[in-house]
Amino acid sequence: MAATIIDVARLCGYSKATVSRAYASPEAVSEKAREKIYAAAKQLNYAPNAIARAMVRQQTENIAFIIHEKQYPAILNPFYSPMLEAAMQEGTRRNYSLFVTTSQDIHLPNGDIYIKKHMDGVIFAGEVDIRVIEEFRKQSIPVVLVNNYLDMDGLVCISADHYGGAVQATEYLCKLGHCKIGLLSGRFSPQVSEARIEGFVKTLAKYDIPVDDRFIADIEPALEDGEEIMTRMLRGVDRPTAFFCTNDTIAAGAMKAVTRAGLRVPEDIAIIGFDDSYISRVVEPELTTVRIDAAKMGCLAMQTLFDLIAGMPVEKAHIQIPTELIVRGTA
Amino acid sequence: MAATIIDVARLCGYSKATVSRAYASPEAVSEKAREKIYAAAKQLNYAPNAIARAMVRQQTENIAFIIHEKQYPAILNPFYSPMLEAAMQEGTRRNYSLFVTTSQDIHLPNGDIYIKKHMDGVIFAGEVDIRVIEEFRKQSIPVVLVNNYLDMDGLVCISADHYGGAVQATEYLCKLGHCKIGLLSGRFSPQVSEARIEGFVKTLAKYDIPVDDRFIADIEPALEDGEEIMTRMLRGVDRPTAFFCTNDTIAAGAMKAVTRAGLRVPEDIAIIGFDDSYISRVVEPELTTVRIDAAKMGCLAMQTLFDLIAGMPVEKAHIQIPTELIVRGTA
Repeated sequence: MAATIIDVARLCGYSKATVSRAYASPEAVSEKAREKIYAAAKQLNYAPNAIARAMVRQQTENIAFIIHEKQYPAILNPFYSPMLEAAMQEGTRRNYSLFVTTSQDIHLPNGDIYIKKHMDGVIFAGEVDIRVIEEFRKQSIPVVLVNNYLDMDGLVCISADHYGGAVQATEYLCKLGHCKIGLLSGRFSPQVSEARIEGFVKTLAKYDIPVDDRFIADIEPALEDGEEIMTRMLRGVDRPTAFFCTNDTIAAGAMKAVTRAGLRVPEDIAIIGFDDSYISRVVEPELTTVRIDAAKMGCLAMQTLFDLIAGMPVEKAHIQIPTELIVRGTA
Repeated sequence: MAATIIDVARLCGYSKATVSRAYASPEAVSEKAREKIYAAAKQLNYAPNAIARAMVRQQTENIAFIIHEKQYPAILNPFYSPMLEAAMQEGTRRNYSLFVTTSQDIHLPNGDIYIKKHMDGVIFAGEVDIRVIEEFRKQSIPVVLVNNYLDMDGLVCISADHYGGAVQATEYLCKLGHCKIGLLSGRFSPQVSEARIEGFVKTLAKYDIPVDDRFIADIEPALEDGEEIMTRMLRGVDRPTAFFCTNDTIAAGAMKAVTRAGLRVPEDIAIIGFDDSYISRVVEPELTTVRIDAAKMGCLAMQTLFDLIAGMPVEKAHIQIPTELIVRGTA
């Protein structure tokens, strides 16, 4: 028969509770005690049953990071990947595991919400159905929402200042003297897309620059789409001298089109991106872009979730991360 | 008191086992039965306890994807991210969750191995301590190793043909007529690095091209390191007309150095990368590179793990994925 925690406690002379703690929160047990406990466990070939431990504590030390299928790929997404990385590392520091899943995973075939697995807390990234959040809260599972804002009582939302970022980018182009500026806008969640478009349009108005509908495009935020639309726009009469792209991927695609047309960035066409993702340093010249500190958002989401799990009150329901214009070589 | 599965079974007229199945494997229950069961559950406000269910089945439907800290970042790693994405999506299709963790997470403070959480199976990516694998197997948790090969009885290893890929790249440069070829080699695990270097060196020998140590570098596989070393190499007397870089990130950095020196890729310096990661299509001209189908490796790892969990025998312990040279614009 396999050794139990009682056998280990008997052999090493510490209480069952101390033995349990030596595994669950080793930092709470003295080094001397830990050594004796681990040695006894080794001698008895004792391995604590993880599921049984979760049963007793009704905690799994798992956090779910749920991304809506619409935003796929989840891990390859250049905006969400630094957020996930930071959340994962923050979790590891606290002995929590992060699992990445989609909203499909929390539904029954008939569409009803069903939280199949126990998770001690949940981070929703971007789009989410309000009923899903309600269901989690009904089951007393703390929720944090990142890159989205919903006006629900006590719901912590961590979002970026998309409007402010678009204003920074557009204003910078205006101040450089550009008076024909195009917009390549990616189809993100309505909230994000609309805030970025609004920042662009309002800033042009402030500088008395007309909005030319021929040079405004609403596209999928992919490299190929950015390249294709820019190729078309470069053929336009009276074309802009600068473009604001609402993410770095679109901007990288647009840069390709400019280079392939035998033109230069930024001399012939200036380009500004958004996100300051890894892509912005891969392209040459490197991309002038609006930085969203996605790693900070991921880390903050995790820390807030730990506070909620520990039963601490929410100090601020809506945390908005400021953006910063990073001037590099494309504008 | 909260409703139990017995209450639901009584109300809908189906057995406890059928009610349980309607949640655990809905596809195994008829639509008619499911509808009645879900309706009864809703009426009684019944929610199955995920931990209790795991306790009964001694299964959590969680798979761990463990990456050694040395290979950090885990999620932002352009080689591992498509593997993770594919593994996650394959898991989701089978109702399994994937959690990403590091090897730190499976050790006690004294360095002993301790599998803190229950996982139904484990994928190790790259470097791993043999004792860790032994511990998992001792606890009957199936293991698959990707991007590494260890000669352990019955251990499934899924790796890429790093040697063959390096031969393809080098041979292509030789056939283009290059007779001075440099090597920018990234520091990966010894197995991977050595196989790629060996493929390069042996191919040069085959084509009677001398290896010039001045133009062989062993560097961290980062953008900045690739740029820095290439900037130095461009100043060398009798410099190569082509470089083989052992990943795309190094190649993108090297391209920056060439462009900034006022030279052209591929006219002045031809460059070939390795991995066919996302980066290869972001740079302009797009990168000629060796494709490793990392998504296929991730998917295969997950499928093999499911077979092992289901108790099926291992057909082939070492699966080697072939590489393919993708010719684009840089060589």
